[in-house]
Amino acid sequence: MKKRLGATDRLYPMPVPLVVGGVYGGDVDCLAVAWIGIASATPPTIAAALRRTRRTLELVRSTGELTVNVPSVAQATVVDYCGLVSGRHRDKFADTGLTLLPGTVVRTPIIEQCPYNMECRVTGETEIGEYVLIVAEVVETHADENVLGPTGDKVDVDKLDPLVYLAGVREYRGLTPKVADAFSVGRSLGPQEEDDRPC
Amino acid sequence: MKKRLGATDRLYPMPVPLVVGGVYGGDVDCLAVAWIGIASATPPTIAAALRRTRRTLELVRSTGELTVNVPSVAQATVVDYCGLVSGRHRDKFADTGLTLLPGTVVRTPIIEQCPYNMECRVTGETEIGEYVLIVAEVVETHADENVLGPTGDKVDVDKLDPLVYLAGVREYRGLTPKVADAFSVGRSLGPQEEDDRPC
Repeated sequence: MKKRLGATDRLYPMPVPLVVGGVYGGDVDCLAVAWIGIASATPPTIAAALRRTRRTLELVRSTGELTVNVPSVAQATVVDYCGLVSGRHRDKFADTGLTLLPGTVVRTPIIEQCPYNMECRVTGETEIGEYVLIVAEVVETHADENVLGPTGDKVDVDKLDPLVYLAGVREYRGLTPKVADAFSVGRSLGPQEEDDRPC
Repeated sequence: MKKRLGATDRLYPMPVPLVVGGVYGGDVDCLAVAWIGIASATPPTIAAALRRTRRTLELVRSTGELTVNVPSVAQATVVDYCGLVSGRHRDKFADTGLTLLPGTVVRTPIIEQCPYNMECRVTGETEIGEYVLIVAEVVETHADENVLGPTGDKVDVDKLDPLVYLAGVREYRGLTPKVADAFSVGRSLGPQEEDDRPC
């Protein structure tokens, strides 16, 4: 039996990367953003919703650049802190010990301790109520060598151990081992074609 | 040591709901969409990227409505099938046994077997390469009573057991038990304020 819960902003599950705005060596801030997803593959593009009042948003708008830094489960405490406080009052990097590395394509730095990092250039934005949906092309991706698989070009998800956010219950979780192969397990259900992208 | 991987469309982790387009009792199709996230809370809004060639996208555009249906881990096979085949050639509902219930606000149906469902009304779209980023207001949410927590108004994530998609390695996974409380665990790192939304 279905129960109506009203209009909600809860999708399950969500990623919770740290989004960085600003210029390496200058004014930089970051925050945890669970409201983020891929917006295209051609070119690779992300869409991230930031509250209008966020200082990181101001920095992103001032440069037209941002980085998306995926944390591991072990980093839940620092990620949570970066969502709790404002960079207007605290230096999140000093408080957490997170350090910055220069981007290779954009002026915005990446977070050294996050094992997976995307450099992005803003291509559009849409104001929706209290939020701004930033659309940005991914221009470079980095991963720590120790989270890569044997071929060296793909992330080993068990090594990455990405942090997961659950809305409503407000929990952080991790991932179980693989339950099935995508673009594979469904083939048992009937004749099928061609497709290999979940979008 | 960081390794550059080039521009990629891989964020970790991703949800993988079934997006439905069309009219209950009429022409309806669905597909698995991992490229989806929350775009605002005011009003609750989602952003989902669908390939231009998708039949479901045509149906969403024809009505201006869609539903987002979150599957559990046990549904990995049917979700995968809905990403593998095209509704132009197969009846995905007949092939998978998935059945439809009428929406309560929109004309597009929800998927009965998915334990969490969002009814949405399109408010904007942006074409990005081969994809269309659909922005849509969430106008109603449903959950199976047996995935709700004791207060009856929030999802119990252990009962929901939402399916997770991992790009690159193309795996489906589930979630571990809670590793930390959000808007809580970070308080150990220093003085902080006010904030309670991950965006």
